Amino acid sequence: MISLVRQFKKIPFSNLAKRCASTFQYVDLQHTEDGYSLLKLNRGPVNSFNLEMANELVEAIDTVEKLPTSRGLIITSAHKVFSAGLDLTELYNPTGDKNREERLRLFWSAFQEVNLRLYRTPLITMAAINGHAPAGGCALSLNCDYRVMVDGKYTIGLNETQVGLTAPYWLCQLFVSVVGYRNAEKFLFLGTLLNPQDALKVGMIDDVVSADELMPTALREMKKWLAVPDVGRTKTKELLRIGYVKEFEKLRGGDLEGFVAVVNNPLLQKTLGGYFKALQSKKK
Amino acid sequence: MISLVRQFKKIPFSNLAKRCASTFQYVDLQHTEDGYSLLKLNRGPVNSFNLEMANELVEAIDTVEKLPTSRGLIITSAHKVFSAGLDLTELYNPTGDKNREERLRLFWSAFQEVNLRLYRTPLITMAAINGHAPAGGCALSLNCDYRVMVDGKYTIGLNETQVGLTAPYWLCQLFVSVVGYRNAEKFLFLGTLLNPQDALKVGMIDDVVSADELMPTALREMKKWLAVPDVGRTKTKELLRIGYVKEFEKLRGGDLEGFVAVVNNPLLQKTLGGYFKALQSKKK
Amino acid sequence: MISLVRQFKKIPFSNLAKRCASTFQYVDLQHTEDGYSLLKLNRGPVNSFNLEMANELVEAIDTVEKLPTSRGLIITSAHKVFSAGLDLTELYNPTGDKNREERLRLFWSAFQEVNLRLYRTPLITMAAINGHAPAGGCALSLNCDYRVMVDGKYTIGLNETQVGLTAPYWLCQLFVSVVGYRNAEKFLFLGTLLNPQDALKVGMIDDVVSADELMPTALREMKKWLAVPDVGRTKTKELLRIGYVKEFEKLRGGDLEGFVAVVNNPLLQKTLGGYFKALQSKKK
Repeated sequence: MISLVRQFKKIPFSNLAKRCASTFQYVDLQHTEDGYSLLKLNRGPVNSFNLEMANELVEAIDTVEKLPTSRGLIITSAHKVFSAGLDLTELYNPTGDKNREERLRLFWSAFQEVNLRLYRTPLITMAAINGHAPAGGCALSLNCDYRVMVDGKYTIGLNETQVGLTAPYWLCQLFVSVVGYRNAEKFLFLGTLLNPQDALKVGMIDDVVSADELMPTALREMKKWLAVPDVGRTKTKELLRIGYVKEFEKLRGGDLEGFVAVVNNPLLQKTLGGYFKALQSKKK
Repeated sequence: MISLVRQFKKIPFSNLAKRCASTFQYVDLQHTEDGYSLLKLNRGPVNSFNLEMANELVEAIDTVEKLPTSRGLIITSAHKVFSAGLDLTELYNPTGDKNREERLRLFWSAFQEVNLRLYRTPLITMAAINGHAPAGGCALSLNCDYRVMVDGKYTIGLNETQVGLTAPYWLCQLFVSVVGYRNAEKFLFLGTLLNPQDALKVGMIDDVVSADELMPTALREMKKWLAVPDVGRTKTKELLRIGYVKEFEKLRGGDLEGFVAVVNNPLLQKTLGGYFKALQSKKK
Repeated sequence: MISLVRQFKKIPFSNLAKRCASTFQYVDLQHTEDGYSLLKLNRGPVNSFNLEMANELVEAIDTVEKLPTSRGLIITSAHKVFSAGLDLTELYNPTGDKNREERLRLFWSAFQEVNLRLYRTPLITMAAINGHAPAGGCALSLNCDYRVMVDGKYTIGLNETQVGLTAPYWLCQLFVSVVGYRNAEKFLFLGTLLNPQDALKVGMIDDVVSADELMPTALREMKKWLAVPDVGRTKTKELLRIGYVKEFEKLRGGDLEGFVAVVNNPLLQKTLGGYFKALQSKKK
């Protein structure tokens, strides 16, 4: 049960991630000499998750885990939004076209994988949230060990119900573990987006600072965590999180089928169609 | 797992509820044109639960669920007390008389059913707590999605231990989900009744307002919730609550037998006997 | 499920405890005429747990449970530290010597037993924390029904990761139940020790008072709890805690093996060797 030396089992480099090029398109990854790496989401303008960005994130986590000199990972954004969540073009019109059907499945599997890998990594993980973080953007940060957010007119939360969608079961459970059951329930039912101060009060984030203090705060916090010996910390992380990880893996297949069914719902497709049409008119 | 269109499965109209007349004796039910219904507990003076009121509540929930124009339900009281909990006359002298024995079982089954139905209904449910809400009164409100309470010399909580009783397991677990494990433990061990301000601090209720602001606040909140599309909200409610519902259903039979055993305990019967005797002398 | 009269099943006097003499060496136990007993840890200077103190604690709990006139137990320290946790000499050089190997197993079994017995006892249990309470000292207090701590430059928490160790699974889960999952995670990862005011804020303790108010506060609180009939309180305690107790018992054997493996790790032995050498030089 308890082991002083055992680290998390390294998960074999995922097939999904193999598809990525060895240099990243949507992720800027730097390794520092202070024992951690810095990852900037770089898929402007709003870092919405497509298949490729999700795959690159998995590959990036894998890269840092294998790097003997990096014991931590700070995730932030190269843009003004932390991440707006799923790229809706991944969900539009997936049927009739074999490639698009296949891609939809790969997309959701990759998004599951990012969340799962980030949650279970023995690395010290921190989100430096420098802008809006709704839905999938919030999910990404919830999987980290620590969250600091910039103060201002930004919001964070799981707002899926506002657009007629549902946060998946595993995300709901993760949310419950961070903000408690009752808060999670209320926020999820209403799809509430919180400003940084309110998010801090309920524990959705761990600190709120001004924009110029965001990275310094993340670095200070990282140093504090790096000072703790890995051996006990990583084992404790495994002890606490392994139950969730096992449940996630068990329901993963069903969650994928459920997601595909939701996306193929004609009502959602009609809504998405209208949305993209409006967007196109706007551009003209 | 995930479904965009599926609603909660409609539970077949319960046999318990069938016993009720189609017009209610202890429940005032009004349907509004704004998308919700209003239910007033009307079994004065303190809305204590007897078999008939419990059955009527189940039937009322069922009625509103079937009404296409109502997506929400506000529960309040027609009297100065929200609800004092179980009617103790239901528990007195149940043995020896076949009818009373049978009624005791029907009574507890009906009380279980009210709680379970209210917890799992896809309706938006709100308790507008306009007075004391101890024990069963508190339980009723805990099953709702939202609780607003009137400020003043009123109390809310699960005070069963104070009178030598025990909140049933399913109620303890519901309480834990609302106020957290540690608070639940402390309040349940001591049978603590909280004033509205303290109840707000620990999340037992969501808002406290003056008497004349109670219904306006409930209505404003209802409007806010009605603005969220049902499809995602109801699915999220099911995702979050189905685990509890399944556990409740599994232990329901044993919970009934346990309740009957508790009630038949000579010590409790003696206590109740003394209580009713004192009450009678008072009336004379 | 529910029972008005049933108390916790008395657990047969443990084999571990039988080894103790009938008079205690490391525990001062007094019975009051007000319905409770007072236990002072007395293994100076810092009340570190060795096999004998752990066994005596189990025996003391057993003694008080059997005493018809005591329904409560207040645990405090006869020294300036509440308890510094495990006595590291119990962990040093256990291999090669049959007696030391056997003793290591008895030691951890006894520590498990103290925690389990204290958690499940029907007694009202309170910790009057009159000094530092790291690691095992914190664990002891977490198993009580109520914790009051003296204000000042004292700390409380589970700091195992700071020294490269891991709090056992059952202790992590107990911690989660008291301070909530997210707080537990953060504190456990970093091995955080909190001052009394911060510990109060997160619910790790229930009250903070000045040194001369510590025992009066514990006594006042004990009186409040003694005023609640045992019958409902003890049944509620069982309802809420039985799940944890069962899980603990199931994983107990594996937890012991894990602990033995951790202790036999050469790295830990080397660290302990250095520690004891430094301590010896200091004494000279």
